[in-house]
Parts: sequence; structure tokens; C-alpha cells
Amino acid sequence: MTHSVQLLGISNAIVDVLVHVDQAFLDTIGAPPGSMTLIDEKQARDIYSKMGPATEMSGGSVANTVAGFANLGGSAAYIGKVRNDQLGDIFNHDMNSLGVNIRLPAATSGPPTARSHILITEDGQRTMQTYLGACLELALADITEATVGNPQLILLEGYVWDIAEGPALARKAAEIARGNGTSVSLSLSDSFCVQRHRDSFEDFVRNDVDIVVADEDEIHALLDTDNIDDAIAKCRSYGKVFAITRSEKGSVIVEGDTCVEQAATPVAKVVDSTGAGDAYSAGFLFGWVNGKTFSECAQYGTFCATKVIQQLGARIEKGLLLSGSN
Amino acid sequence: MTHSVQLLGISNAIVDVLVHVDQAFLDTIGAPPGSMTLIDEKQARDIYSKMGPATEMSGGSVANTVAGFANLGGSAAYIGKVRNDQLGDIFNHDMNSLGVNIRLPAATSGPPTARSHILITEDGQRTMQTYLGACLELALADITEATVGNPQLILLEGYVWDIAEGPALARKAAEIARGNGTSVSLSLSDSFCVQRHRDSFEDFVRNDVDIVVADEDEIHALLDTDNIDDAIAKCRSYGKVFAITRSEKGSVIVEGDTCVEQAATPVAKVVDSTGAGDAYSAGFLFGWVNGKTFSECAQYGTFCATKVIQQLGARIEKGLLLSGSN
Repeated sequence: MTHSVQLLGISNAIVDVLVHVDQAFLDTIGAPPGSMTLIDEKQARDIYSKMGPATEMSGGSVANTVAGFANLGGSAAYIGKVRNDQLGDIFNHDMNSLGVNIRLPAATSGPPTARSHILITEDGQRTMQTYLGACLELALADITEATVGNPQLILLEGYVWDIAEGPALARKAAEIARGNGTSVSLSLSDSFCVQRHRDSFEDFVRNDVDIVVADEDEIHALLDTDNIDDAIAKCRSYGKVFAITRSEKGSVIVEGDTCVEQAATPVAKVVDSTGAGDAYSAGFLFGWVNGKTFSECAQYGTFCATKVIQQLGARIEKGLLLSGSN
Repeated sequence: MTHSVQLLGISNAIVDVLVHVDQAFLDTIGAPPGSMTLIDEKQARDIYSKMGPATEMSGGSVANTVAGFANLGGSAAYIGKVRNDQLGDIFNHDMNSLGVNIRLPAATSGPPTARSHILITEDGQRTMQTYLGACLELALADITEATVGNPQLILLEGYVWDIAEGPALARKAAEIARGNGTSVSLSLSDSFCVQRHRDSFEDFVRNDVDIVVADEDEIHALLDTDNIDDAIAKCRSYGKVFAITRSEKGSVIVEGDTCVEQAATPVAKVVDSTGAGDAYSAGFLFGWVNGKTFSECAQYGTFCATKVIQQLGARIEKGLLLSGSN
């Protein structure tokens, strides 16, 4: 079967509002360092009024991965909901400019385009306060044969489960995928998100997913493990591909009896860890759709993640080329 | 007389849309490298649709200076026109978060908040395509005793002359200043802008201005000179303060018989020259309002400019502290 595009992302369409803060600021707003908290419009206004001058860039976890994947030369499409406002224009522009095919029109009513306030501390760690806005309007009706098409691979994110019709639309996408010879991958988003939707994720991974991308905390939350060896052992029993990122410990790819370990590339200074996992996924999945070995996929992922943590923002600069080796 | 704030900026309120491009892109759109071109809404849509993923940050030349000045610990206020849209919110937020007092409400109708597409080439040079939008609505009626108050210093920019009522509102501001013991400074913006309004600038500098900040091209355009010695000689005859930036050649401050030269600080790599002059002005004027010598003012300016060219974007990171020496 000929696939229309290599990768279709289905996720929350978000504009990042990046700001440097100190630890005291996180204490003031009561945000645990490294956490992602969903906030409402009033809370969004409140935190924005308290924070310093910011930089705005398109974001969203799987949206970052799709952008990175397109940047690497992959063909990609995207399903997510923005409002027809200036931030929505920015989000869609940035996707379009990378050649990503936007499948849904911007909403003409309802809440504004989502934004995530990304609070970056001196150590490069980011703490996110996310107002989902228009993302919450993504509906089961948006997932159709026409909008999904027949991509080689669909990538969903755990955050989609925070949307009312999210679990249903994810299953619908997987169902369309099955009929089209499309593979399905899932990014677990964050460990708190996994805790919110653990049983549903477990079921979805067992029945609908071919590839899981996750960091160590997320995989432990999913599998109820607390060390990497136990997690790997449990992953083996699924018969799926698990790509697990471990920060400075590198990454590990597990599929049944196969287990490939990839070292991280040391960097002098982490400028901003935002998007490290998303960039890794971009490289890994770009390798995967191009039939590369797990080792090569992991090298691609590592290369992209290494780039992104040395810059401000979650998306790799346009024109990053994979040399084929790390 | 007690001044309410140290610095009041009156200028175009703009959000920057920063993107990395290659030389071929500038050729495609027919933009001379390093130029600033005013474009209309249709041209803005066209260029935006052609360019890659971008980063959005508050900008505007004198607005950058005001933000930098506030960042250094100065008290500041601002007069400029944004629309009540998302980009306008971003602009005002970023000013407010630095403690800058915004003197005009956002417009509730009319064109959207201005944006400048800043095209950054590999050598760090920026070429600007600016859609003025709401800025063009800044009117004579916006300049009143109430909105101006009695700052220690007003800073206007040459770009204000591109607004229909710009020359008139600049004169009105200068008139209010005279009655309040307020000094007036003018940033010449760019050499093409000087050429557009040369006679009016000449007259304004002679009659209403105490301090001119300009780069070498701008000062030559104003004084009809082509070498720095001739320019300095002509500056002497005005009896005003001229702070002239000369890129890697440093800067020179002229007032009558006084002439102070300040060397530039060598940097390993210019990331983005956007805002170098604006940052210099912030440091220079911060020194000036605090009664520093010209030499100290020039050192402050150099320190700020050196910082800003080593980062992406036109505004210095929050919390930059002047050590008092370079």
C-alpha cells in the first residue's frame, strides 16, 4: 500500500510562552519543578501577569515531534485544534512552513488557541503551566477517513486523554489505522498524565499501539515499576516496540527479546531541556519509517535531542540534517 | 523638579517575528541585506507564508531600549499603539513585567498590532520587513500632559515620522517636555528613515533635541557626510549630545568640544545583531539619567550591546546588571 504521508500526528496544538524564572518563582505559584500542570483561563492570565518578558514559539509535545520529523525531511500531516486567532495563525504557519499538512481548519468560535507557560530555571529544567483552550474542542467527529488518510504511522500523545473525547478519538484513529495498514505510536507525555489515565493507556498500548515512546518516569508509571530492569522485563511481554529515554543515561529500545541501549551525548551546558523527548521521538520515528535498525533509530533520536537541549525552545532549528551516524 | 519616571519612550510598538533565512531568501523577496522595509498587510501575509518557523518576541527599536533601560533598574514609561489582540497582549505584558508604565490603552478597533519580520542570515545580520498596523493609529491626541507627564528624559524614534501624525506628535511631546524640565532624545532609527525625513529631523534636532543616538550610516544621512571625522566636526556645531555607534569600531560621543571614544568589545560570534543599537541606547541613557560621565555612559552602552548580539532577539535577558565598568 502506498502511504500518503509517513507520519500523522494527533495531539494538542499549543504555542509555548517561554520565560526564565528562578526557583522562588516556582515556589510562589506552587509548581513542583519539572511538572506539567493544566490550568484554566483565569489561572493562565494570573501566571502570565506574574512572569517576566517571554518568547513565543509553536510547541505541543507531539506537534514538536511532527515538526522535527518534517525538518529531518520526513513527510508529515497533523490533526490538532487551534482557534482562528493570532496564536493559532502562528502555530499553523510554523507547521505549514515545514511542509506539514494541516488537516483541520481553525475553530471560528470557542476558547483561544492553547498556550503553555514554560518556566525555565537556571539548571535548564522546565516547569509547564498549560492552558488547553481550543485543544479541548478536538472531537471524535474530527477523526475521519478523510482527515486521517492512510499514513505509514500515526503518533498520538497521552495528553490527548485530557480532552473529553480524547480516548474515543484515539481509538477511532487506531481503528482507521488498522484498516489502512497504518502503524500506531503513542508518546506517554508525562508521568502525571500516565497516572491520570493509566488503565486506559494500558489497554490502548496492549490493543492498538505498535510503538511506545516514553521517558523513564512515564514508563514506570505505566508499568508500575521502579527500576529500569524491571521495566524492560515488563516491556518484553507486550511484544511492542518501546523507546525509553533516560536523560543523561541515554535511551533503551525494547521489543520482545531485543534490547538496544544507546548512550547519551554529553553536552557542556543544558540551555533548556524543553522538547528533548519530543526531538528524540522525531529522530527515532524518522529512522523507523525509513526502515533503519533500532540502533540507528536511537542514534537519530539522540542526535536530535542533543541539539534541542542546547538551544532555547522545543523545536530543532530548520534544516538539521542527519548524517546517518551520531 | 521631581520627575515621575526617568525615561518615557514614544515609538512604534512592534512584535518581532524572528526567522533564520539564507541569502537566497532575501533575493527571492528582493530585500537588500540589512534594510528595513515598510510593508502592507497583504505583503506581510505573503512574506510570512514564505518564511520558515519563527520565534515571536516583543520588539520595536525604542521599545527595546525602554525595556532594556527598565531591565537595568531604570524607571520607565511608554507611549505606543497596539491593538487589543494577542500580539498586543504580548507586547504590553512584556513591558509591564519589567515595570514599564504603559500610558495608552490598546485600540479596540482598526488594524492589528504591528509585527516586524526579522530575517536573520548566517552572518548575524538582520533584514526587516515591517508591517506597522496599529502603530499608524498613534495620533497627536495621544500626546497630552497626562500621557507624557514629566519624565526626566523622553526618547523618540525616527520611525515615528513614518506615522501620519508622527512629526506633529513628536513636536507636541517636545513642547510638553520644555514646560516640565524634561530632556528630549531622538534615535535616528535607520539611514533610509533619515533619508525619508531628513529636513524634518534636521529641524527637530536643532530645535527640540538634547541627545541624538544613531549609528554611523544614520548620522551620515542626517549630516550629509561620508566619513566619521567630518560627521564629528558637524556634530560639534549643534551643541547637542551625539552618541554614535560604529559596530566593531566602537562608539563615539560628541558634545561641542568634547569627544569621547569607546572601543567595542570583541565577541567570538555575532548570533543576531538585532537590537545592538537599541541595547547601546539603553545602557547609554541609563548612565546619562544617573549623571554618569560620557565615558561611563558609553561603557554601559557597549556592555548592553555586547550582550544582545550574542543572543537571539533584540531585548537583553531580564536581570542584566551593570557592574559599573565594562
